[in-house]
Amino acid sequence: MKQDDPLVVFTPSGRRGRVPSGTSVLDAARRLGVDLDSVCGGRGICSKCQISLGTGSFPKHGITVTEEALSAKNAVEQRYDEKRGLPPARRLGCQARILDDAVIDVPPESQIHRQVVRKDAELRAIEMDTATRLCLVDVAEPDLQAPSGDLERLNSALAAQWQIGPARCPLPVLARLQATLRRGDWQVTVALHRAPDGLEILDIWPGFFEGPLYGLAIDIGSTTIAGHLTDLSTGTVIASSGRMNPQIRFGEDLMSRVSHAMLTPGGAAEMTAALHAGLDRLAAEIATEAGVAPRQIVETVLVGNPVMHHLALGLDPVELGQAPFALASSGALSLAAGDLGIGAINPEARAYLLPLIAGHVGADAAAVALSEAPEEADELTLIVDVGTNAEILLGDRSGVLACSSPTGPAFEGAQISAGQRAAPGAIERVRIDPATKEPRFKVIGCELWSDDPDFAETVGPAGVTGICGSGIIEAVAEMRLAGLVDMSGLIGSAAQTGSERCRPEGRTQSYLLHDGSSAGGPVIAVTQTDIRAIQLAKAALYAGARLLMDRRGVDRVERVVLAGAFGAHISPLHAMVLGMIPDVPLDRVRSAGNAAGTGARIALCSVAARRKIEEVVRRIEKVETATEPRFQEHFVAANALPHASDPFPELARQRHLPEVVFNADGGGNRRRRRPR
Amino acid sequence: MKQDDPLVVFTPSGRRGRVPSGTSVLDAARRLGVDLDSVCGGRGICSKCQISLGTGSFPKHGITVTEEALSAKNAVEQRYDEKRGLPPARRLGCQARILDDAVIDVPPESQIHRQVVRKDAELRAIEMDTATRLCLVDVAEPDLQAPSGDLERLNSALAAQWQIGPARCPLPVLARLQATLRRGDWQVTVALHRAPDGLEILDIWPGFFEGPLYGLAIDIGSTTIAGHLTDLSTGTVIASSGRMNPQIRFGEDLMSRVSHAMLTPGGAAEMTAALHAGLDRLAAEIATEAGVAPRQIVETVLVGNPVMHHLALGLDPVELGQAPFALASSGALSLAAGDLGIGAINPEARAYLLPLIAGHVGADAAAVALSEAPEEADELTLIVDVGTNAEILLGDRSGVLACSSPTGPAFEGAQISAGQRAAPGAIERVRIDPATKEPRFKVIGCELWSDDPDFAETVGPAGVTGICGSGIIEAVAEMRLAGLVDMSGLIGSAAQTGSERCRPEGRTQSYLLHDGSSAGGPVIAVTQTDIRAIQLAKAALYAGARLLMDRRGVDRVERVVLAGAFGAHISPLHAMVLGMIPDVPLDRVRSAGNAAGTGARIALCSVAARRKIEEVVRRIEKVETATEPRFQEHFVAANALPHASDPFPELARQRHLPEVVFNADGGGNRRRRRPR
Repeated sequence: MKQDDPLVVFTPSGRRGRVPSGTSVLDAARRLGVDLDSVCGGRGICSKCQISLGTGSFPKHGITVTEEALSAKNAVEQRYDEKRGLPPARRLGCQARILDDAVIDVPPESQIHRQVVRKDAELRAIEMDTATRLCLVDVAEPDLQAPSGDLERLNSALAAQWQIGPARCPLPVLARLQATLRRGDWQVTVALHRAPDGLEILDIWPGFFEGPLYGLAIDIGSTTIAGHLTDLSTGTVIASSGRMNPQIRFGEDLMSRVSHAMLTPGGAAEMTAALHAGLDRLAAEIATEAGVAPRQIVETVLVGNPVMHHLALGLDPVELGQAPFALASSGALSLAAGDLGIGAINPEARAYLLPLIAGHVGADAAAVALSEAPEEADELTLIVDVGTNAEILLGDRSGVLACSSPTGPAFEGAQISAGQRAAPGAIERVRIDPATKEPRFKVIGCELWSDDPDFAETVGPAGVTGICGSGIIEAVAEMRLAGLVDMSGLIGSAAQTGSERCRPEGRTQSYLLHDGSSAGGPVIAVTQTDIRAIQLAKAALYAGARLLMDRRGVDRVERVVLAGAFGAHISPLHAMVLGMIPDVPLDRVRSAGNAAGTGARIALCSVAARRKIEEVVRRIEKVETATEPRFQEHFVAANALPHASDPFPELARQRHLPEVVFNADGGGNRRRRRPR
Repeated sequence: MKQDDPLVVFTPSGRRGRVPSGTSVLDAARRLGVDLDSVCGGRGICSKCQISLGTGSFPKHGITVTEEALSAKNAVEQRYDEKRGLPPARRLGCQARILDDAVIDVPPESQIHRQVVRKDAELRAIEMDTATRLCLVDVAEPDLQAPSGDLERLNSALAAQWQIGPARCPLPVLARLQATLRRGDWQVTVALHRAPDGLEILDIWPGFFEGPLYGLAIDIGSTTIAGHLTDLSTGTVIASSGRMNPQIRFGEDLMSRVSHAMLTPGGAAEMTAALHAGLDRLAAEIATEAGVAPRQIVETVLVGNPVMHHLALGLDPVELGQAPFALASSGALSLAAGDLGIGAINPEARAYLLPLIAGHVGADAAAVALSEAPEEADELTLIVDVGTNAEILLGDRSGVLACSSPTGPAFEGAQISAGQRAAPGAIERVRIDPATKEPRFKVIGCELWSDDPDFAETVGPAGVTGICGSGIIEAVAEMRLAGLVDMSGLIGSAAQTGSERCRPEGRTQSYLLHDGSSAGGPVIAVTQTDIRAIQLAKAALYAGARLLMDRRGVDRVERVVLAGAFGAHISPLHAMVLGMIPDVPLDRVRSAGNAAGTGARIALCSVAARRKIEEVVRRIEKVETATEPRFQEHFVAANALPHASDPFPELARQRHLPEVVFNADGGGNRRRRRPR
């Protein structure tokens, strides 16, 4: 580097330095540590290294750049431009040579570690850093005088042309190596996977293979399995698909699965086989739906709760059914996707499983932590992933706590008299007029409220079929707001509430939401038993959160994040009326959508993120609700709506909760003062 | 360490140092870097750490040792002694504590890196350094308050108690981990395998598992597969077994196998399947024969020529059938034994394949190099492994050369008129009286010579069935010594030789060795075609050796080593009469027996040996006979018996070769002078 060598400044990195005149932009980028992509290694084939020249005066850098700062297009670049087309002002970084001072812009799509914007999170992006990437290599032909294996020469080429390796080669790929090298006339593209214990060649194509490679992020829930097919060069999700977890026939919830494993010889293996078949079908379906060659799907990341995690690995979950809930292995795992029964993608595809946090706090919770990064939060953040079990994280930069709380399936519409899964026809929104006590609602699949004149016609012949998790939460909360339910959770009688929709049912009352019987449809009411189920679930959730707050020594949190597909549909106001979550300003409650799925997708796109979450999970402090004496205490107090003792000042600022008290037989005083 | 601490001297290592009074012998050994074995990690269970105290005056060390230098037997040691018995004067190193100056002897069986004497090699021993060993560990029980996986706690225990790890755990072992830990009451024995990329848990047993672990060294020949089951704690071969290579049905020799792969769709896969089945049966048989639990066989090492190597790995050998004879991979490989079809041993057993030297010089030749260590020889050593192909190594401390030469199967009795494999009934030794021209011989399975009066009765009804490789070599050499065959390889007629055993056969002569026709047995003669086949084979062998000598710039070697099962039966004198090997003093020719098998066994016992041979093979200079112009020249000159131009002074000192010349039609002069 001499003083009269051209000065080159790369944007947006700001990296700068002098390089000998005639250096290619790609070489200059490599020398200066600028992140510029290339699959073909500078052969003018892949066009991943596209850059553009900034011209004019750059006082900040003290240089003036002319069009002559880069060499004119050479034959290789011209041919590429003619055959495939270069966008205006774009140049191939590997062909364009620096002749004079230059400012060179590397557009996002030419960066390996480009930032992928997340729609679901404020201010956070995924920095691409995939474990598997394509590399074009020219391999030396065999030489009788200096015999060596084709694999050894491929590895020499990787070392010389990419400064990496040596790479291991699984037998099935090795079995194709010789024919592929000869078919590609000694030029091949390899899919190289960075495993913790070294590089591995996952696949090989003759000549230049453009890709892209894909990865499949899978969230194994107890009820559903969801997959997100992701382009590993852009980080874009190109298809998402979900299907029922076929294990559901062995039991609706986790404990019934564990019981099946404990009580039925071969039961665990049976559930593993069912899950493997389900994962394989999901992978096949999503590849077909996206029109992607299965061979190009080379990675998968799986998250799930501990029972699903163990069953996916063929591990008997029996220890997870009893204290001390010992996991077989809690660390992150890297293995062959085939070991998880996923055969419908590249046969050498790798699988990564996020670490587990504790016996009841699984890889799904770790994925939520990866997506939401509580360890980087400035404000004390409570993250709640609501499902059959609630996983709860509480933390900020000074540390993160985690626990799991047994909410049961009420929040998912199970164990509710008219409950159903969130599907077309299910009531998902409810409003009750505080004056008339008349309800109106919306069902999934219809944009209109039920009091709209066109509702009946629009909702169609299937009509209103039941009530889903978010619907029952809103219904109970609205009943509380309308004075139909008291703080203890009791439904008042028609006499007490002044609403004929309150009807006796045995010794308790129920509230009629919708009577479809005239059209042959269901009668949908909120019964006292329904409210009790919701109370138990929300009390467990709140008690878990309070336990973490106790451990942290606080009685307030600053932010609440509701994760989970269900979390996306919960109305923060109604959740707070029920006392599901601690009292915070309503605008401090955010839905994070399917954070576990997002976390899986981040791990798919970034090896650095995998290493980070492994480290974060090691540092998370685990709190066990089952043995913590205060849990029971918190649970009992949290049974009231919203709470027997904790004040909810932020909620009070939003809404007034009628201070009604009913007694169980439907008599008693209406609108009596709270007894304290 | 203080000046008044006891001084302890370990023998035979000579390591010495002061340790605090009360230190256990095992701890002292570890501190001073003394090689003292232990499986139980000092719990007084395994007794691998037995030592004995030397008492009396040791002027050399400046100390006097009394019986009180070690603590009396404690309860643990007494219980071991009562239950299992300690040999006289032996102590448990982990229990006995050093109280005063002591000289402590570590017997060979208490050393991890003990030397195992080799019967087959002068002055060389195998230093034990197995890749897999047993370790007893006490694992912490799961703690609800500090949740972690059972595997993570096992790894913590390995780190704390053995200063190793973490170890990976294959899924099938992980699936047994939880139940095994609980069955062993949190004490387990693990089989830990040191792979190049880290530690792996191959198996796990509840409580203390004594072992031993076994390894299987397998030599895959084109014709036979041989296995040697080895105790990995002692290095002893406890059973050996061989069976036909089931691929033989696809062709007798290597090239016909390669042809089958080239010409038959699926042919290579078919041969791989046959070989895998053969390997699996061999493993099963040898385990049964030795009465060893298959689960305890945790490692296997395989050697073979390049075609067998590739077929074992499921690699199509088609490239090995044509120049430039490119190998798919030439490096050493570590993989699952199951990938080679070997299912009859521990399902997690590992397989190690030695590196290949070149397209025609395989892992078998590398194993020979490991066994014979030419790179450590002071004298220039020629090593010949005679089989269908001859692999030839030439070297000493200054470097090693290698080549392969296409001898064909004549040396194995194939393509010989009365040829057969070395099996009972085959003629293996031949002597011809120079005066009477009458032969006598020995057959395999009978100790008597054929001129013994009891021979016919002893050899039994099966009688004499044919002639094997070593038999045909001796027969031709003896014919040359007796003046029945001239330097060009022509057999004389009865008129020329004066022996009625020389009989015309078409336009050539043959020599009758044995006429069993009166008893319904075969007529065994050496025909002119037989001699031509032997000449071609031996010329190829000699020409290969000469080519290496050319490259080295020498025309003499100092030692010759004959390797291979066949090499073990060749008489050095007769080999030299034929000119199979260069002229050296006869006492400088040694048979190394099955050196390839020995090399495999060394690799099984020693990781250091694996790393060493990988390095040696990288440095071996490969010479390709097929393209070397001088090979043809050497081949033609080596056609004569012993040679057309090279002098054989050492041979001349031993025997006089009659200078007869016959012509092809049986006429010509007898005892004519050589025309030069």
